Amino acid sequence: MIKVGIVGGTGYTGVELLRLLSQHPKVTLQAITSRKEAGTAVAEMFPSLRGRVNLAFSTPETAALTECDVVFFATPHGVAMAQTPELLQAGVKVIDLAADFRLKSLSEFESWYGMAHTCPDLLAEAVYGLPEIHRAAIQKARIIGNPGCYPTTVQLGLLPLLENGSRFIDSTTLIADAKSGVSGAGRKAEVGYLFSEASDNFKAYGVKGHRHHPEIVQQLRLVAGHDQIGLTFVPHLVPMIRGMLTTLYVRITPEGRDQDFQALFEQRYANEPFVDVMPPGSSPETRSVRASNQLRLAVHRPVVNGLPGDLLIILVAQDNLVKGASGQALQCMNLMFGLPETLGLTQLPVLP
Amino acid sequence: MIKVGIVGGTGYTGVELLRLLSQHPKVTLQAITSRKEAGTAVAEMFPSLRGRVNLAFSTPETAALTECDVVFFATPHGVAMAQTPELLQAGVKVIDLAADFRLKSLSEFESWYGMAHTCPDLLAEAVYGLPEIHRAAIQKARIIGNPGCYPTTVQLGLLPLLENGSRFIDSTTLIADAKSGVSGAGRKAEVGYLFSEASDNFKAYGVKGHRHHPEIVQQLRLVAGHDQIGLTFVPHLVPMIRGMLTTLYVRITPEGRDQDFQALFEQRYANEPFVDVMPPGSSPETRSVRASNQLRLAVHRPVVNGLPGDLLIILVAQDNLVKGASGQALQCMNLMFGLPETLGLTQLPVLP
Amino acid sequence: MIKVGIVGGTGYTGVELLRLLSQHPKVTLQAITSRKEAGTAVAEMFPSLRGRVNLAFSTPETAALTECDVVFFATPHGVAMAQTPELLQAGVKVIDLAADFRLKSLSEFESWYGMAHTCPDLLAEAVYGLPEIHRAAIQKARIIGNPGCYPTTVQLGLLPLLENGSRFIDSTTLIADAKSGVSGAGRKAEVGYLFSEASDNFKAYGVKGHRHHPEIVQQLRLVAGHDQIGLTFVPHLVPMIRGMLTTLYVRITPEGRDQDFQALFEQRYANEPFVDVMPPGSSPETRSVRASNQLRLAVHRPVVNGLPGDLLIILVAQDNLVKGASGQALQCMNLMFGLPETLGLTQLPVLP
Amino acid sequence: MIKVGIVGGTGYTGVELLRLLSQHPKVTLQAITSRKEAGTAVAEMFPSLRGRVNLAFSTPETAALTECDVVFFATPHGVAMAQTPELLQAGVKVIDLAADFRLKSLSEFESWYGMAHTCPDLLAEAVYGLPEIHRAAIQKARIIGNPGCYPTTVQLGLLPLLENGSRFIDSTTLIADAKSGVSGAGRKAEVGYLFSEASDNFKAYGVKGHRHHPEIVQQLRLVAGHDQIGLTFVPHLVPMIRGMLTTLYVRITPEGRDQDFQALFEQRYANEPFVDVMPPGSSPETRSVRASNQLRLAVHRPVVNGLPGDLLIILVAQDNLVKGASGQALQCMNLMFGLPETLGLTQLPVLP
Repeated sequence: MIKVGIVGGTGYTGVELLRLLSQHPKVTLQAITSRKEAGTAVAEMFPSLRGRVNLAFSTPETAALTECDVVFFATPHGVAMAQTPELLQAGVKVIDLAADFRLKSLSEFESWYGMAHTCPDLLAEAVYGLPEIHRAAIQKARIIGNPGCYPTTVQLGLLPLLENGSRFIDSTTLIADAKSGVSGAGRKAEVGYLFSEASDNFKAYGVKGHRHHPEIVQQLRLVAGHDQIGLTFVPHLVPMIRGMLTTLYVRITPEGRDQDFQALFEQRYANEPFVDVMPPGSSPETRSVRASNQLRLAVHRPVVNGLPGDLLIILVAQDNLVKGASGQALQCMNLMFGLPETLGLTQLPVLP
Repeated sequence: MIKVGIVGGTGYTGVELLRLLSQHPKVTLQAITSRKEAGTAVAEMFPSLRGRVNLAFSTPETAALTECDVVFFATPHGVAMAQTPELLQAGVKVIDLAADFRLKSLSEFESWYGMAHTCPDLLAEAVYGLPEIHRAAIQKARIIGNPGCYPTTVQLGLLPLLENGSRFIDSTTLIADAKSGVSGAGRKAEVGYLFSEASDNFKAYGVKGHRHHPEIVQQLRLVAGHDQIGLTFVPHLVPMIRGMLTTLYVRITPEGRDQDFQALFEQRYANEPFVDVMPPGSSPETRSVRASNQLRLAVHRPVVNGLPGDLLIILVAQDNLVKGASGQALQCMNLMFGLPETLGLTQLPVLP
Repeated sequence: MIKVGIVGGTGYTGVELLRLLSQHPKVTLQAITSRKEAGTAVAEMFPSLRGRVNLAFSTPETAALTECDVVFFATPHGVAMAQTPELLQAGVKVIDLAADFRLKSLSEFESWYGMAHTCPDLLAEAVYGLPEIHRAAIQKARIIGNPGCYPTTVQLGLLPLLENGSRFIDSTTLIADAKSGVSGAGRKAEVGYLFSEASDNFKAYGVKGHRHHPEIVQQLRLVAGHDQIGLTFVPHLVPMIRGMLTTLYVRITPEGRDQDFQALFEQRYANEPFVDVMPPGSSPETRSVRASNQLRLAVHRPVVNGLPGDLLIILVAQDNLVKGASGQALQCMNLMFGLPETLGLTQLPVLP
Repeated sequence: MIKVGIVGGTGYTGVELLRLLSQHPKVTLQAITSRKEAGTAVAEMFPSLRGRVNLAFSTPETAALTECDVVFFATPHGVAMAQTPELLQAGVKVIDLAADFRLKSLSEFESWYGMAHTCPDLLAEAVYGLPEIHRAAIQKARIIGNPGCYPTTVQLGLLPLLENGSRFIDSTTLIADAKSGVSGAGRKAEVGYLFSEASDNFKAYGVKGHRHHPEIVQQLRLVAGHDQIGLTFVPHLVPMIRGMLTTLYVRITPEGRDQDFQALFEQRYANEPFVDVMPPGSSPETRSVRASNQLRLAVHRPVVNGLPGDLLIILVAQDNLVKGASGQALQCMNLMFGLPETLGLTQLPVLP
């Protein structure tokens, strides 16, 4: 059994980790910390866990995290980097669901997150936890920077197009029109995310700039093998709890005109357990992946004047809290400990 | 034109007052105060008012409230009572949408609201702002304690039954199972009212005791003319923005068995512009009054073993922010200034 | 492995059965029928099942249901009774999620469901599938009439009170104010259940009479051991997909005044895996059981004038599609085939 | 007073027309027809209108529509064209909220709507009812083809860019990522629009082709004065009742690089009562226009590498039932009858 600790389990990625980990057959939940809630039973805060999770929140000091095999950080940005060196020294692996280990560029991290990085030497070692791209590295990793929710959809939606040296598409005019359920904003008491503000409403936000933009661009460059990535990224807020749909618009180059893009995607993801390339003409809905680690995508190439046009539309749906956060972190854990990658992640989506 | 001031216009009852007052043909919006938002344009905080409300929030000090004809308090409990004496002295009428002037019993106020009352001498003068009961007094009032949202539905749902000396019903076993939209909780940044907490969810709350209970009981006693009121009141939270439905369960006494309760309600409310007694068998839905000052109710008497049973069910629907708060306050204002009672309150409900 | 057939799998209880059965370790899904959708892949209609359920809908004729060990009917009322005799004869057990085998009284069935019963002789044999009451009988049953969603909450909320010969409470003035998510109405194309009708809205319905009323009363009489049951039942429609909360109001008799009702409930349900008696003062929310077979309840006895009053309030929450329908059916199946009762039913609730 | 008839008032644009018309100071509601609901009181079907609309639905035959001054068609496509010639002959003006008179090309109409046009000779005379483009023509029109909801947002979002001969932008690579509330699908009993299907969910639809595409392109060509319009249009379904947000992506040409696009929009719409160009950096939300005829838009030009990039993002929000349908129809009526354009359309948006 893998001994697992969670730092900061009072948010949505935290409770989702608890839901998934406590149903995982090879995991023992060892400790969960929250300075603010120390002493409170987890199941008191989250009655959905009554009778199944018997832990109480503890302070980081008393949690004996160094006796765990792996520690997940479901914390605000900046917490993981403070504790990671000590944990590594004790032989504990670290999976951070925040941004501390996602960006390779120290200056980009510090400019977007407004704080100094306290262990920049570990940035090179940390592995970006997207198994569909970095599976081998994850298997050997000590530190995982778990991807953001938006970046997961954008990367998996563009990966097959960019890996081919991006000759078939114009990588400089990419557009990602992304829509997220409200749980993506976390369990923070802010007026903008109140029911009476966010319900029966729709809007874009972060049009001027969003922290996930540099993360996506870093990864797309890596995948493409060059720096010519131009990405417009506009997130929107949808009045639903869970779910994310990203609509990608990609210009096809003259060289790509005869390409069979459906086949390209199907081949690329043929062996990926959590990426479902839907049949031509499909429109993945977020509820078709609700509460599961599945990501579904569809490839469209609208006809113009009777001929296939030069624009690809990729529709990508996931549950932002599972494949977009805690499920993906668990998928990484499975890889890091030599377990079957899908272990504990095969729950079917909840529909309706 | 009536010069109107609003103290504390950043909550939901405040913005609703703004919506209604700025469309009222006899009102000039003079000032709106918010210490925290002083200097901010109202329409910047509430873009729905862009181009129509040109005021900015000001501090109470600079707001020249004493030059108004009437001041509405859309503030937390305790604010109105601090400023009311000075306003009255300046000849300004006061309508408080919080609880400072609702309860006649000083001790009940202080025990339920956890604060000392700073002008207890005004409690006797203050008029409870439910026009269907206190119309004449409101017309002459200087201070209005505007009813809570739940109390409005319970009182108007029971009024015709209790006014008859309550011989027809058992006033000691009243049950009010009340359901409110989330805006009733106000525009406060609290985790429990986040979209991701309150959406796709339903629960009771305040079962142990709710501040609206003593207010309702005080009024029911007044209406009944005796103290034998026993009321069980259980509020619930509905995942909708606006709207309130209260289901009332009332035991019929042997004396009441032959009473035509439908007729009783229809007669009582025949001349009330904002109370709609629906035909027998109806089920008022909250959206049928959305964004309007209308309250709709229906009277049911289920058949038991082929005969009319001894239980009445009264269903009462209103918009908690309009008839349950700001619309009712405006209705009082109209009465206080000798205007037609419905002036500025005739907007049709928004359906769908 | 148990060979399972489903008749009529295109509704919500059907797709929920599919979700649960396809994750059950001892079940082989053999056939699923739908005359209208014959030939369509199940996963085409419900993309949430893509890659996991490879069956296509077939006609009842070709489905070889008689080769199954058990057949679930997730059909409109009247379908199961037509096919049950043939299935029984072939040695197949039947679990009907509709009403064909719930009511013991032929005349009540025929009057409430407006059709003649085609195998009234089987009514006596059929077992009402509420394990917390009829566990032993279910284990030996060939036909299960699976309880309705409302009846499950009302029965489990009143069971401990009525089993004691109902000396502690007045069984003639029971009130059940019930609230259901919209999926309870099924996957029928009716205007009243459109998003634009049911969202941001709340109403009562069926106040004049609801088919679940006679079912509840039949069962309460059985439990109480006498016929003195008076029940007022008012269902309401909540703008949420899944979930049901029933608020029960029960008068305490003088004999019951010193009873410890919390203890009564805790003792009664101490060994029930799917009934969670929450601590005093709790308020179960529907999301705390979302997508799980758990039912949670809380017992309240409001204080009146400083003393415990004579009214009990029982709050009961369940997922109407799981414990209120398909999960309960699976629980019965486990019992009928000698499997652990919780097998395949231990998924944690999905929160948020 | 203008005598108004409505054909087909049982859908959402119909009831919205009723809401607006019955509050319009210069309108007398003369007749409303529905073959299916003939005899039913309007207020019985829509209780929100109780006490304010006393009409009953009548059959088209008995409705005496030819005695009206203007008839609105809130019907499925194909109904208006059948009755328009007779009405015109009787001197009655016609405003069609469906598509019969939107497309100038007979072949496009017949191919997209799958029916023959019965009065193609009137297509040339019919005026496209978007006042911001065709005000003068509307004032003199006998027949209005009222714009679709999506087309209104796309046209008003692109108008200032295309009117300038489209030198500043590339009119061949336009992208409209549009999101609509569910009421846009109408009040039809279809499974896909049930609450339990559409709530807590998000998806694209009509990616292969949508009837609003040819309508938009026709109008953009007209505005631009040339045929070089390339538009990708992807509609999405948002779990909210009312509201539409369209995110437009427009490439800036080298010639447009120094253009002040914010100023361009502000100048173009300076005198438009229902188009609000928000300050730079704004993000219009749909609730800021809920239940009102206001459309709000914001112009963004993301910075790339420290310089203004070559992509414009225009965000356009409207209420799909008001400015996107019935409100716009009323705006046209005001123009046609020489009334102030805003008469009866000044209701403030309902927020929250």
